Amino acid sequence: MKFLCKKNILQEGISIVQKAVTGKSTLPVLSGILIKTDKNKLILTGSDMDLSIETKVEADIVEEGTIVLDAKLFGEIIRKLPNDTIEINTLENNSIEIICQKSRFTLIYMNPEEFPTPPIINENMIFSISEKKLKTMIKGTIFATAQDETRPILTGVLFQIKEDNLNFVALDGYRLALRKDPVDNNNTINAVIPGKTLNEVSKILEDVDKMVNITFTPNHILFSVGETKIISRLLEGEFISYNSIIPEEYKLKVDINRIEFLNSIERASLMAKDGNTNLVKFTVSDDKMVITSNSQLGMVREEVNINMQGEDLQIAFNSKYLLDALKSMEEEEITLEFFSSVSPCIIKNRENDNCIYLVLPVRLLNNN
Amino acid sequence: MKFLCKKNILQEGISIVQKAVTGKSTLPVLSGILIKTDKNKLILTGSDMDLSIETKVEADIVEEGTIVLDAKLFGEIIRKLPNDTIEINTLENNSIEIICQKSRFTLIYMNPEEFPTPPIINENMIFSISEKKLKTMIKGTIFATAQDETRPILTGVLFQIKEDNLNFVALDGYRLALRKDPVDNNNTINAVIPGKTLNEVSKILEDVDKMVNITFTPNHILFSVGETKIISRLLEGEFISYNSIIPEEYKLKVDINRIEFLNSIERASLMAKDGNTNLVKFTVSDDKMVITSNSQLGMVREEVNINMQGEDLQIAFNSKYLLDALKSMEEEEITLEFFSSVSPCIIKNRENDNCIYLVLPVRLLNNN
Repeated sequence: MKFLCKKNILQEGISIVQKAVTGKSTLPVLSGILIKTDKNKLILTGSDMDLSIETKVEADIVEEGTIVLDAKLFGEIIRKLPNDTIEINTLENNSIEIICQKSRFTLIYMNPEEFPTPPIINENMIFSISEKKLKTMIKGTIFATAQDETRPILTGVLFQIKEDNLNFVALDGYRLALRKDPVDNNNTINAVIPGKTLNEVSKILEDVDKMVNITFTPNHILFSVGETKIISRLLEGEFISYNSIIPEEYKLKVDINRIEFLNSIERASLMAKDGNTNLVKFTVSDDKMVITSNSQLGMVREEVNINMQGEDLQIAFNSKYLLDALKSMEEEEITLEFFSSVSPCIIKNRENDNCIYLVLPVRLLNNN
Repeated sequence: MKFLCKKNILQEGISIVQKAVTGKSTLPVLSGILIKTDKNKLILTGSDMDLSIETKVEADIVEEGTIVLDAKLFGEIIRKLPNDTIEINTLENNSIEIICQKSRFTLIYMNPEEFPTPPIINENMIFSISEKKLKTMIKGTIFATAQDETRPILTGVLFQIKEDNLNFVALDGYRLALRKDPVDNNNTINAVIPGKTLNEVSKILEDVDKMVNITFTPNHILFSVGETKIISRLLEGEFISYNSIIPEEYKLKVDINRIEFLNSIERASLMAKDGNTNLVKFTVSDDKMVITSNSQLGMVREEVNINMQGEDLQIAFNSKYLLDALKSMEEEEITLEFFSSVSPCIIKNRENDNCIYLVLPVRLLNNN
């Protein structure tokens, strides 16, 4: 095997596929990157079994071959080499040589035959979405996935195509995040994508209108982004039927400025850190939202002007859950809907019907 | 006590004095900031006994007084308030009220009488240096202070005025860093300043020509930077007589480009991380410096063109010590001086005689 490749091109390819190399696998070869020549390109692959990322980079292939190199060490070497052409060729004894200007490295490579083959997916593209939009939908829901593994299905995000809408849904028992986008697609899809996969996908996506092609198989999802393919196992099992959780009725509707609301909750939270409860109380009446919190540290009272329709209300929340939702929204003016002090709060953008956030209240023992 | 203060002015003052609040003190009041009215100003003070930082900020004082507020909580509250005028006034029960627009905090304050009084230093300024120059001298030596406390004096930097030179010297048994600057001052000063103090001082200093005034007492040093005063205990004891450590003779002198040398050592170090030895070998001959390292991970060979005068040499170093020195230097062309493979290496700027770095070699068991 022998090839020449520009340093910055190789570095970028490594940084993409490295996202799938967790270093947590028990299989030593998975700490490496599979490098394979393919006509005038190199195919780089990183994998942790559940997730594989593959990308192609341009190279001048002198002699074909396949090797596996330690991802971290190889990545650091390439990053620190001068910005020039890098030559890589195999030597005897399972070793390779990396040459750039006056630098010469010799590394042992791992056996490429031990590297697990990612599932072969027939790329009959069935869905496509812009990088920008996919990134927004991921960032708008992923924070609400469950962090513990007691119900594995909740560590994923539901990808659903239904009635001309693409829905992303995540929920963890305390809150729910739903993002939707109208699509022109007659398929019905229900797939639960691991949160970890979407986290890595969102790092690769840029804020551009270029399209991502998505293919599903019963057990896998394939994202094609330019020269990069991301293949992930899907989570097994049925997702919660989330529609029944979202209430349709409300007794109080509040129009509020998102940034003012967010800043007030952030300040109130400073007093709510005591005992790690994040407990913040909200009193709605007279077109005002009064936000209070008190602990051993002291007390805080915040006031935000609102427009309200309906009954006065006192309710309490874990402020973290409200902040997560408010930070992931984009419109300046938002709407809150309440039913009672023990029913969930619904948060929506005022203008576009593109998201629903639901947060369960904290039940207070008394009226304090 | 009652005063009004602009949010950004108060925030900046807090962030300066907070640098002295370590939160590690056993005295609870030292987790706080002392706030004292003084005519049309507030004096803010943070302290950890060894180090006190005091600064003045403009305020509209309505009623005089003194309080101590938890540094972290108070700092976070002020930082998150809107950019407007903040009103602070004392209430009953040792509490204060912080009001800004529609935000209102109530906090318990601590007893200001428990706050230790910093030593009173008669500011008969005996030395002055620009912020920029002082910052360079600190950054150019502080990395070579000892990190463990077995010889406490080595955790500090020697501040020495001697024969029309200001010298900063740090050493830890493996390397030495010396920065010097010609001064017009007839005093003789030998003071050892704790590394921790200089670290905080360098964060407050900016790259400007404004002067810092420095006053010494037998046990303390006072830095006056604009409205900020930093008072630190000095370390007790005699510093090592460093002059006897710096060799004056050499058998090999090498002229080398600092950046090329630094980059080559950084790459070679990638192979030297195995076993955490950072062991890198240098071979000097034929106007070339060959840098090699090998470990279980593989091998590396780097070559840098040099100008040499003297004997060929093979020598090995802990690369970290060389890199620390090379990164803190500023000139592009530097000079290395060697005596033998078991004697220290001296590193200097080629043009300006403003620093000396010394690094001890690692003795190799055999010639590999």
